[in-house]
Amino acid sequence: MSTFVLKGNFCFSKNQTELTTKENAYLVCEEGVCKGVYEELPEKYKSLPCHDYGEKLIIPGLIDLHVHAPQYTFRGLGMDLELIDWLNTHTFKEEAKYANLDYAERAYEIFVDDLMKSATTRACIFGTIHNEATLKLMEMLEDRGVKGYVGKVNMDRNSPEELCEESDSLSAQKTIEWIEEARNRFHKIKPILTPRFIPTCSDELMKKLESIQEKYHLPVQSHLSENIGEIEWVQELCPTTKFYGEAYNKFGMFGNKYPAIMAHCVHSTEAELELIAKQNVFVAHCPQSNTNLSSGVAPIRKYFNKGIKMGLGSDVAGGFDLSIFRAMADALQVSKLRWRLLDTNFTPLKLEEAFYLATKGGGQFFGKVGSFEEGYEFDAVVLDDSSFRTMRKLSVKERIERLIYLANDTCVVDKYIAGENVK
Amino acid sequence: MSTFVLKGNFCFSKNQTELTTKENAYLVCEEGVCKGVYEELPEKYKSLPCHDYGEKLIIPGLIDLHVHAPQYTFRGLGMDLELIDWLNTHTFKEEAKYANLDYAERAYEIFVDDLMKSATTRACIFGTIHNEATLKLMEMLEDRGVKGYVGKVNMDRNSPEELCEESDSLSAQKTIEWIEEARNRFHKIKPILTPRFIPTCSDELMKKLESIQEKYHLPVQSHLSENIGEIEWVQELCPTTKFYGEAYNKFGMFGNKYPAIMAHCVHSTEAELELIAKQNVFVAHCPQSNTNLSSGVAPIRKYFNKGIKMGLGSDVAGGFDLSIFRAMADALQVSKLRWRLLDTNFTPLKLEEAFYLATKGGGQFFGKVGSFEEGYEFDAVVLDDSSFRTMRKLSVKERIERLIYLANDTCVVDKYIAGENVK
Repeated sequence: MSTFVLKGNFCFSKNQTELTTKENAYLVCEEGVCKGVYEELPEKYKSLPCHDYGEKLIIPGLIDLHVHAPQYTFRGLGMDLELIDWLNTHTFKEEAKYANLDYAERAYEIFVDDLMKSATTRACIFGTIHNEATLKLMEMLEDRGVKGYVGKVNMDRNSPEELCEESDSLSAQKTIEWIEEARNRFHKIKPILTPRFIPTCSDELMKKLESIQEKYHLPVQSHLSENIGEIEWVQELCPTTKFYGEAYNKFGMFGNKYPAIMAHCVHSTEAELELIAKQNVFVAHCPQSNTNLSSGVAPIRKYFNKGIKMGLGSDVAGGFDLSIFRAMADALQVSKLRWRLLDTNFTPLKLEEAFYLATKGGGQFFGKVGSFEEGYEFDAVVLDDSSFRTMRKLSVKERIERLIYLANDTCVVDKYIAGENVK
Repeated sequence: MSTFVLKGNFCFSKNQTELTTKENAYLVCEEGVCKGVYEELPEKYKSLPCHDYGEKLIIPGLIDLHVHAPQYTFRGLGMDLELIDWLNTHTFKEEAKYANLDYAERAYEIFVDDLMKSATTRACIFGTIHNEATLKLMEMLEDRGVKGYVGKVNMDRNSPEELCEESDSLSAQKTIEWIEEARNRFHKIKPILTPRFIPTCSDELMKKLESIQEKYHLPVQSHLSENIGEIEWVQELCPTTKFYGEAYNKFGMFGNKYPAIMAHCVHSTEAELELIAKQNVFVAHCPQSNTNLSSGVAPIRKYFNKGIKMGLGSDVAGGFDLSIFRAMADALQVSKLRWRLLDTNFTPLKLEEAFYLATKGGGQFFGKVGSFEEGYEFDAVVLDDSSFRTMRKLSVKERIERLIYLANDTCVVDKYIAGENVK
């Protein structure tokens, strides 16, 4: 049953600079697609079932453009380390355990349960190098009604023995098997090519992934210009590239033909940004992770100015929190500190921009997703903010601002993905 | 009944650099005072009632050195503004409403209820200029068993008409009346002198507050070197002072004789810091507020190096969150960004240091408070972290790290203040 009406208080973005809000209005869903928000319900929709959410807020489902599912169960640990030390001390050891399907299943259940409780409706998710575990994660997400992408990770160098694929050929072969099976079994959850990052992927492997991409027409997700130590390492590994992104670009995995999500872009050079802006690259801005791992603050105002496509990422477990509300607050906060401490040329983000990034900005990666405009897929989250008591009569916009800073999972009352109630 | 034993997993600070942790241990409370943590319960305590909290964590109650109670109900609003604009647009208008005792009572009930749900056991709290409302707040806190300080605010210049005391004499007179009544009625909640900040307090008023301090032997709380615009304003108002802190110091309100809490100290000069270190001044570090209002990041590593006494403040509603766990996480995070973006001379805080600031560091202002060492007042919080599911067997220290990043009010199972269970 994916044709119905919701009544409540709506907030969504048509563009980056303003929020559209409607009080006591109606949102029509027809076959999983938005047919618009109306202050008066048109006659032709009056026979549809209408769920009245009263005073509650209804916003587009939030989008997580970058999250590592196998890292979820150790979130909030090792936060006094920087990226490479943190990977070696915590992350790689944990991910190696996903060779064991039983372990993977128990751990992914925790991730998927908590994702369902959150306001996130779509995500681009890293798995591990393991096909079975990654397919299990995809199955769990598919069963719960989530839409999005999951990647089996590729790593054939500079990785600990227990988390290193034996050869580029084997890594590529496993990738093909995984794609074939995923395409047969899943419809809401799709495969995405996932070379972990340049340091762990040989040129030979990247070449093979390029052919796989050509054959299967898949998007790609990876990491870019996150941490100073990492960038220096990439420069050593790829002495002929002028910037980090070239190492993806030369293998066609930088939005050349198929969309790419590049997480972080904290320290991207001007040349790198030109290419990002020109090709089909989405920046996944992960402010919390970039803070936790002392990477820095990406200049999002500059990226907006250049017209770069962007969304937010929780980057669990570099980030400790799955919440994309928290990612909005973090994005606002770090933009202020960057402005105050580093560079007054780029003004802090506004709340409208943070909301846009978390919804329509990231949603673009999935097509018409992340807004309540007509023709958008019907992803919606119903929010109860009554536990945050106030003495004021707040506007919808003010209630949204409070939720950006205060929301937790208990605020999420109902959740729809492509018209299906998944709560 | 304030003599008993708690069993559980303990974590507390003896100093800034290390956490003391004890698993399945016993903490003895005798007449509201800690008698130590024991791995085996000594014979002489075996007859005492023992509350076994099983796997739960028990830590000293958290300390909030700087919070504005009347701002609580609009937290999370207006966060796109800087300090002076935010004060004029939101804060002063709200505080003016506390002239109405009925309004104040309803609003303070929200603040006190939420404070009780939090892990905070002691606080230094700003009220408003209004005696009746401030006494009502003190009464509510006293009734709920909280210990700490509350200040009736003084403002006699540069304030909107509805929030400006008519004259320095009237402000002083009201202050005396308030102190007298508070001292008669309350024992756990004590009055603290609270000139709002130099811009709103004339020299004449400050002189009178100095006499009041001499007469009643009261500590003082105020704001210092928070925001660049504010500091420039103070320099205009006090052209003869070399630094902001001098404007308090010349009236004896800078830890000269009685302890002072100075909130923020984001932009303190070397001369100001020397005086802070020399006299009895506590810095209330408010990282979230300093981020939200684009003030900057206080160099806490430098302050540690100078031996300055410090604790954490939520600074609601410059901060949107009452949680001192969140303040710990924020302190860690902003110290990393300051190091990365501004000054690599001052290394980021470590989790041990954040925990120290939130407990024993701030607790020092109240005497022997903020630790489980023998002789400390018995403030304890019992925490359930089982909702943060993990695949690992975590040490007590790892569980504390996770709570710093993930804790919310639902984790707080029980709370003791000076031996009294207040939950």
